[in-house]
Amino acid sequence: MLMSGREYLQSIRDGRVLYVGKERIADQTAHPAFAQGARTYAALYDMKADPALRDVMSFAENGERYSMYFLQPRTQEDLRRRNRAHRKIADFGFGLLGRSPDAVAGNITGLSMKPEIFDSEPGGHRENLLKIYRHLRRDDIFATYAIVPPPAARNKDYYQSKGLPQPALKVTAEDDAGVTLNGMKMLATGAAYAHEVLIGNVMPLAPDQLKESITCVIPLNLPGLSLWARRPFNRAGAIEFDAPLTYRFDESDCMLVFKDVRVPWEKVIVHDNPALSRNIYVQTPSHALANHQCNVRFRSKLRFLTGIASLVTRATGARDIPAVRDTLGRLAAMEAGFEAMVDGQIEACQGVDHGYVLYNRRYLYAAIHWAMEHHSELIDIVRDLMGGGQFQFPASIDVLEDAGLRELFETFWTAGEMRAADRMQLFKLAWDLIGSDHASRATSYEKFFVGPGFAVRNYNFVNTPWDELHAIAEALMASYQADQRSPS
Amino acid sequence: MLMSGREYLQSIRDGRVLYVGKERIADQTAHPAFAQGARTYAALYDMKADPALRDVMSFAENGERYSMYFLQPRTQEDLRRRNRAHRKIADFGFGLLGRSPDAVAGNITGLSMKPEIFDSEPGGHRENLLKIYRHLRRDDIFATYAIVPPPAARNKDYYQSKGLPQPALKVTAEDDAGVTLNGMKMLATGAAYAHEVLIGNVMPLAPDQLKESITCVIPLNLPGLSLWARRPFNRAGAIEFDAPLTYRFDESDCMLVFKDVRVPWEKVIVHDNPALSRNIYVQTPSHALANHQCNVRFRSKLRFLTGIASLVTRATGARDIPAVRDTLGRLAAMEAGFEAMVDGQIEACQGVDHGYVLYNRRYLYAAIHWAMEHHSELIDIVRDLMGGGQFQFPASIDVLEDAGLRELFETFWTAGEMRAADRMQLFKLAWDLIGSDHASRATSYEKFFVGPGFAVRNYNFVNTPWDELHAIAEALMASYQADQRSPS
Amino acid sequence: MLMSGREYLQSIRDGRVLYVGKERIADQTAHPAFAQGARTYAALYDMKADPALRDVMSFAENGERYSMYFLQPRTQEDLRRRNRAHRKIADFGFGLLGRSPDAVAGNITGLSMKPEIFDSEPGGHRENLLKIYRHLRRDDIFATYAIVPPPAARNKDYYQSKGLPQPALKVTAEDDAGVTLNGMKMLATGAAYAHEVLIGNVMPLAPDQLKESITCVIPLNLPGLSLWARRPFNRAGAIEFDAPLTYRFDESDCMLVFKDVRVPWEKVIVHDNPALSRNIYVQTPSHALANHQCNVRFRSKLRFLTGIASLVTRATGARDIPAVRDTLGRLAAMEAGFEAMVDGQIEACQGVDHGYVLYNRRYLYAAIHWAMEHHSELIDIVRDLMGGGQFQFPASIDVLEDAGLRELFETFWTAGEMRAADRMQLFKLAWDLIGSDHASRATSYEKFFVGPGFAVRNYNFVNTPWDELHAIAEALMASYQADQRSPS
Amino acid sequence: MLMSGREYLQSIRDGRVLYVGKERIADQTAHPAFAQGARTYAALYDMKADPALRDVMSFAENGERYSMYFLQPRTQEDLRRRNRAHRKIADFGFGLLGRSPDAVAGNITGLSMKPEIFDSEPGGHRENLLKIYRHLRRDDIFATYAIVPPPAARNKDYYQSKGLPQPALKVTAEDDAGVTLNGMKMLATGAAYAHEVLIGNVMPLAPDQLKESITCVIPLNLPGLSLWARRPFNRAGAIEFDAPLTYRFDESDCMLVFKDVRVPWEKVIVHDNPALSRNIYVQTPSHALANHQCNVRFRSKLRFLTGIASLVTRATGARDIPAVRDTLGRLAAMEAGFEAMVDGQIEACQGVDHGYVLYNRRYLYAAIHWAMEHHSELIDIVRDLMGGGQFQFPASIDVLEDAGLRELFETFWTAGEMRAADRMQLFKLAWDLIGSDHASRATSYEKFFVGPGFAVRNYNFVNTPWDELHAIAEALMASYQADQRSPS
Repeated sequence: MLMSGREYLQSIRDGRVLYVGKERIADQTAHPAFAQGARTYAALYDMKADPALRDVMSFAENGERYSMYFLQPRTQEDLRRRNRAHRKIADFGFGLLGRSPDAVAGNITGLSMKPEIFDSEPGGHRENLLKIYRHLRRDDIFATYAIVPPPAARNKDYYQSKGLPQPALKVTAEDDAGVTLNGMKMLATGAAYAHEVLIGNVMPLAPDQLKESITCVIPLNLPGLSLWARRPFNRAGAIEFDAPLTYRFDESDCMLVFKDVRVPWEKVIVHDNPALSRNIYVQTPSHALANHQCNVRFRSKLRFLTGIASLVTRATGARDIPAVRDTLGRLAAMEAGFEAMVDGQIEACQGVDHGYVLYNRRYLYAAIHWAMEHHSELIDIVRDLMGGGQFQFPASIDVLEDAGLRELFETFWTAGEMRAADRMQLFKLAWDLIGSDHASRATSYEKFFVGPGFAVRNYNFVNTPWDELHAIAEALMASYQADQRSPS
Repeated sequence: MLMSGREYLQSIRDGRVLYVGKERIADQTAHPAFAQGARTYAALYDMKADPALRDVMSFAENGERYSMYFLQPRTQEDLRRRNRAHRKIADFGFGLLGRSPDAVAGNITGLSMKPEIFDSEPGGHRENLLKIYRHLRRDDIFATYAIVPPPAARNKDYYQSKGLPQPALKVTAEDDAGVTLNGMKMLATGAAYAHEVLIGNVMPLAPDQLKESITCVIPLNLPGLSLWARRPFNRAGAIEFDAPLTYRFDESDCMLVFKDVRVPWEKVIVHDNPALSRNIYVQTPSHALANHQCNVRFRSKLRFLTGIASLVTRATGARDIPAVRDTLGRLAAMEAGFEAMVDGQIEACQGVDHGYVLYNRRYLYAAIHWAMEHHSELIDIVRDLMGGGQFQFPASIDVLEDAGLRELFETFWTAGEMRAADRMQLFKLAWDLIGSDHASRATSYEKFFVGPGFAVRNYNFVNTPWDELHAIAEALMASYQADQRSPS
Repeated sequence: MLMSGREYLQSIRDGRVLYVGKERIADQTAHPAFAQGARTYAALYDMKADPALRDVMSFAENGERYSMYFLQPRTQEDLRRRNRAHRKIADFGFGLLGRSPDAVAGNITGLSMKPEIFDSEPGGHRENLLKIYRHLRRDDIFATYAIVPPPAARNKDYYQSKGLPQPALKVTAEDDAGVTLNGMKMLATGAAYAHEVLIGNVMPLAPDQLKESITCVIPLNLPGLSLWARRPFNRAGAIEFDAPLTYRFDESDCMLVFKDVRVPWEKVIVHDNPALSRNIYVQTPSHALANHQCNVRFRSKLRFLTGIASLVTRATGARDIPAVRDTLGRLAAMEAGFEAMVDGQIEACQGVDHGYVLYNRRYLYAAIHWAMEHHSELIDIVRDLMGGGQFQFPASIDVLEDAGLRELFETFWTAGEMRAADRMQLFKLAWDLIGSDHASRATSYEKFFVGPGFAVRNYNFVNTPWDELHAIAEALMASYQADQRSPS
Repeated sequence: MLMSGREYLQSIRDGRVLYVGKERIADQTAHPAFAQGARTYAALYDMKADPALRDVMSFAENGERYSMYFLQPRTQEDLRRRNRAHRKIADFGFGLLGRSPDAVAGNITGLSMKPEIFDSEPGGHRENLLKIYRHLRRDDIFATYAIVPPPAARNKDYYQSKGLPQPALKVTAEDDAGVTLNGMKMLATGAAYAHEVLIGNVMPLAPDQLKESITCVIPLNLPGLSLWARRPFNRAGAIEFDAPLTYRFDESDCMLVFKDVRVPWEKVIVHDNPALSRNIYVQTPSHALANHQCNVRFRSKLRFLTGIASLVTRATGARDIPAVRDTLGRLAAMEAGFEAMVDGQIEACQGVDHGYVLYNRRYLYAAIHWAMEHHSELIDIVRDLMGGGQFQFPASIDVLEDAGLRELFETFWTAGEMRAADRMQLFKLAWDLIGSDHASRATSYEKFFVGPGFAVRNYNFVNTPWDELHAIAEALMASYQADQRSPS
């Protein structure tokens, strides 16, 4: 039962409490800061429901159609199907929507592929998870997540010794109906636009943090829950032309503040078990399945970026200078290499429990690491290719609205075959990709959305078969003694 | 005759034509986009005139006091005096004002130290230059420059063949009173705030570009001249706390459009001589003297950045983690290394004509290159240290104005010893230094304000005594023959 | 008809003229500089003929078995079969044999998959190529290549004007029997050990370099041909333990000098056609098929290197320090990312003419570029992990032969669980991989064996579908006009 | 009383026990592995005694002349004098002699400038240190040091629990005459050539490592002391032309093994005080004064390297290609930047106790860090510029000794204006600087001789005035409140 764009827009006007600074946003779909973003997600829902894209964007099971990103993959071809649907969505967003609806869907689908993990220890709720999975796919839900405690939560002892309330989200009461939550969780990207949110912990908790281990999937309009958005980048009266990516793709990031929020038991999947609350991601296909979406998304962004870099150099007339061509060749090599890393995950896919298959984990984490490590450099390369180009244009394309200024603009800013407005459009677009507030937030996002660098390197470390690699040199060393010599 | 801040503010309300998009800015000192910037420069003038800083900020000559950056250095100590004045100004602006009044003053002062260059070829106007130099220092003028043609100017042939007006600024008529200018020149950083602008060419012109070689120093309110600002970063009603650097230090960048602008002869220093119009910078102390200011400014920025990086890690509690401390040690090494490069220019200063002395050119261009090459990395290091910190705060500090939100904010965002608002202040400041629109513009500025990378490397190349370096290996090779052997 | 190791050793004692400085090497299989290397290749032949590895190392066609690297791939599975055989060989040589027998075999096999290219222009010899292909695979020939002119060849005009002989190899006479060659060609890696050599041009020639365009496959013992080896790294009396990789894997590099060498027509595949002499590589599967071997080889080296890096840190006790573990995680991410790039070439394989398939070209060149660009850094990482370790051991393990020294050695150099000799073995091995003469030559090899960096980036540039990448941004720009605005 | 080269050679034939593997070297000045090195140091002594260089290389005090590197600097000019003498020595060795006689002399001189540190705690021997300082300068002694424990020493507990002898050097007995030492110390660079060695600890010891804290300056021929050299790079019969730097500048590195070595009290400067044994370096001018020599030495190497890079590109004809010129410009910028960092240490010198002055510590550690961090890249740049050049030459210049080969060589390897042998000489020299065994050892040396990277960054961290840097941002933050706004 795929939702239409119109239904989607209706569905998110659900009374959630959303603040921008001190301003309460009554209707995201009408407020300057969020209206364009909401339209973007609506268009995505429409695309997903488009009959022409049916086979790419959805699959059938027991006579029902579901979004492809809920598919539990059983064959290498299933992995390709998921990959194609991710691509379609990522291309739609030019790789700029980190938390599109196919992202967290991968986490939940991954959990559903190894539900017995919830039986393995106390505090797991297998049936709840499966019900949630079926609900999300049946109702075409857009879920996001908030799975990191606020920084202050690290100073637990301090808060306790001072008798201060501790900001980390935790269960403060429970009864037959469910649990009561208080505290803060971060960072719910897309929460202004999503329907529900997975609350949990992707970083290890201490064994005594029982109450913080609560893991649940809840609607964003639960009473007591407020969303505190970071500063939006879109402004009232902004002209799309002047910053087209900001205009469409500001996915927003929200801190979630819980004041006596009541969550019914059926929404809870882990409770009172710190170890389990993290293991569900890394000991099931959850983390890997979700992160393949990140790889595919980054691939779209990289293709977009590479194309723009080339267009910019064509516009400045520099594309045929050997040093510039060399830089583009390098950029193209980086882009193709990343695509190869994504495709390699399918070629080297791995069988997992219950006959499911999964993208190659080592390759997946390697690609995540590559993207995290190279994003700043990629941006810097395009910045170099742009020179100071973006600062040479008027403050806004609204100069066209004044006949006198328009004439001056068209006379002085036209260059070669390229009209003034076309040049300006390209440079404004490129700058919005690499230099605007929006772009700068993306640079931090690409570095941290999977966790800090050391965490990403740790995923790589723990997934490496060190014994196998050690054995290469060990076998060599076993093959010669201290007394073997060349002829003299 | 040092100007006060109040006099300065009065003096720039001079009727200049300044556009932000289609909006004409009648009074920069009152418009949201420029008012704070103007106040910043006014404070700088006040600081300069402060009796307590008299000996640092100014020098006396023939009974008159002038801003120190007009000093023609005759001794190593004079170089230190200029250096100290630059420092004071740069520290005032936290290294964020690229085109503070001491910048282009260095160019003009450098020209005045070798005025005979204007006699060396036709088209030079030695006396005009000297008069301009004396006028600037006597009237305490803030001058900027615009010395690069618009990108379209490269396609000269295209414009000619199509009969299109060519956008590069050139002399289109001349008579006894002076010359008439038409065309575009870029990129006049600070033009919204400066009094005058040096128009010229820092990149080589072709020999037949006689009319483009015009070099002059003119007021920014000449009839026919319009300033087209790039998008300003400061907004109406912006709160300083939310973006304090944007608030104070948006120096603006303007394209200059000339429509039949008449310039009297006494403002002209080069005319009809393409080679001379560039040589005046590199064959006199002009370029080097001006760029020492860039070095000193970058030093201030680097110190500011290093301090902030440390404060951020202290706020997150990460400062004692060995990997973080190691990163701070590396940042400190980079910072100190850059300071050393600036001081080294004084230790190894060079005598030039007329008994003047100059900062060591090779060291100066090396420092310029270092800054250009490392700025992105420096920003990236701080970005890494911040993690996603800046996105965890409310969109604006205006939450304090609502009692309910204020209580939630102070409860949940306080961490350890550090109050919510203090943490937010630090993170907003840090982000404004490395992540905002303003910061991103600075990153491009640091890469390109002296010219593109290859031009900076070329300054280094041409100033290198290659014969001296070759001789090292050549002498070694001359010292052995093909038949010298070790004992067997 | 697969050759045994013994047959191989016999076969290369063929009277070729091989110099090390002024010394003529009469028998490579007995001379200290080459004996161990020859043994290595012999062992490779034995492995290839081993019945247990029959299906991996060879394929059957018309009842005959051939080395797998002569397989003309018709399916994705065929690409996997070639890949597996390359792996086996690369693992055998720890990724250190750049020009193992499966390398140039790929070039010739690639030519055989599009033989009509030789009919497309004058000077091509299709039937000769096919005969050569069948001869190589039938007789289990180890071929290398020399396809670059000597540096001096660039100064053609100088040589002509001075009447000097020009060093570039060219046809100086021809008759019914064949052509006569004079000049120099470089750089025949492995020529001391191979049977035959492909002579040709991988860099574009000028249109008038008709006689330099000669392309042929000839035995290395032709009269008049001499091989001038660069300094070998293996020494008389060298102890394997002290430098085990140098001992086994010095593949040698030779300049080839031709003095009136007569080549019969049936060995010639291109003559008098400069354009064709280069196009045969890039317009057929030749270049791509051969370079997949390079990727697979680098993969083996990278696995070996990563394992050694880990073992070294285990030996020094540093492996559990967070910063070291982080570095290993990064190294593992790089290693896995490269493996993914190789596997991605299979997942995204491309159909080519005649029903053949080929590794994805863009991914392949991206992987080549990655390896070239990162090799120095990889080596540097291991160097960092080793610290000064390698210099703390005695000059040679021969200290064990003196009872007194042995006792001191075992007393003082034993550390923890690890005996002195075992630690020394590991550090000597690691150093031989990253720090010895042998290792240093490999570093230059990895940078240049496919050509200089700009050439590798050019392969990436020309294989990029720029129109497809441009279209992404172009479609976006076509979707909005200058007048679309956010709600105010 | 400056020694002559001949006296020096005589003086080091002192019966010391020096092993290369199992071979005992009876006379370093005659053995192929060390003879050329010894000649190099002798030439250095001759240069130092040369009357023409008297004022640069030595100073007079109380009528006696001493090597300049024993000067206790009291003025900025004294720092320049030391700097000039270091330069002369460093230029003599092309920056390749890490442990030239002026290196450890700086350590001892630095100690002599704050001798009261030895009185500050028990176990210090102030008078011994002063006597040693006077002895070294009076007798023109070449001292080296060994101040790091063997790696195994970290596993102290293991050795104790197993009852194994612990390899770290310690005092095992003491009596009226002095102390008895047993154990191992590393890594005495130059020990084959020096007269004496400073034994001590530059890394912190644990408080209970009393006996390991022994610090003394002893002759290298003490009974019971043996020197275990790492593998020497020079070979019997080696031709200088083939590897000229290896030939002259293999300074050797030795592990020192002590078997019941008796050291008289007057040679002891610290005993039974772990904290003091390290503090003497960092709490006196010792470490900084010595490391300025490292900076100056690296400067010479960098100038040599930059010149060679340029010569190589001239030889290949690539110097005028824009990309190559750009690379040389970048290299020149790095070189000049480093020189500036060294000179800056003088401009910003610091007063210390007793009226002495010292190079600016922060700048000094910054320069050390720069060199450590960039050395690999510098080498890699030259490697890139060389291409595969070095492998295109015959194995040895001994081809000239065979008339036939000589003719072929001169015919084929001559290129343009440059004779075959001249090209070969340049490429062999360049390769010996960046690619040989000798070069590779230097790369590790440059990374580790001051300690591992984290230690160098720690020197930078602890010398940074963090409060001063913090204050910059803190003052800014104190200057605005949450309610300051732009005009609306």
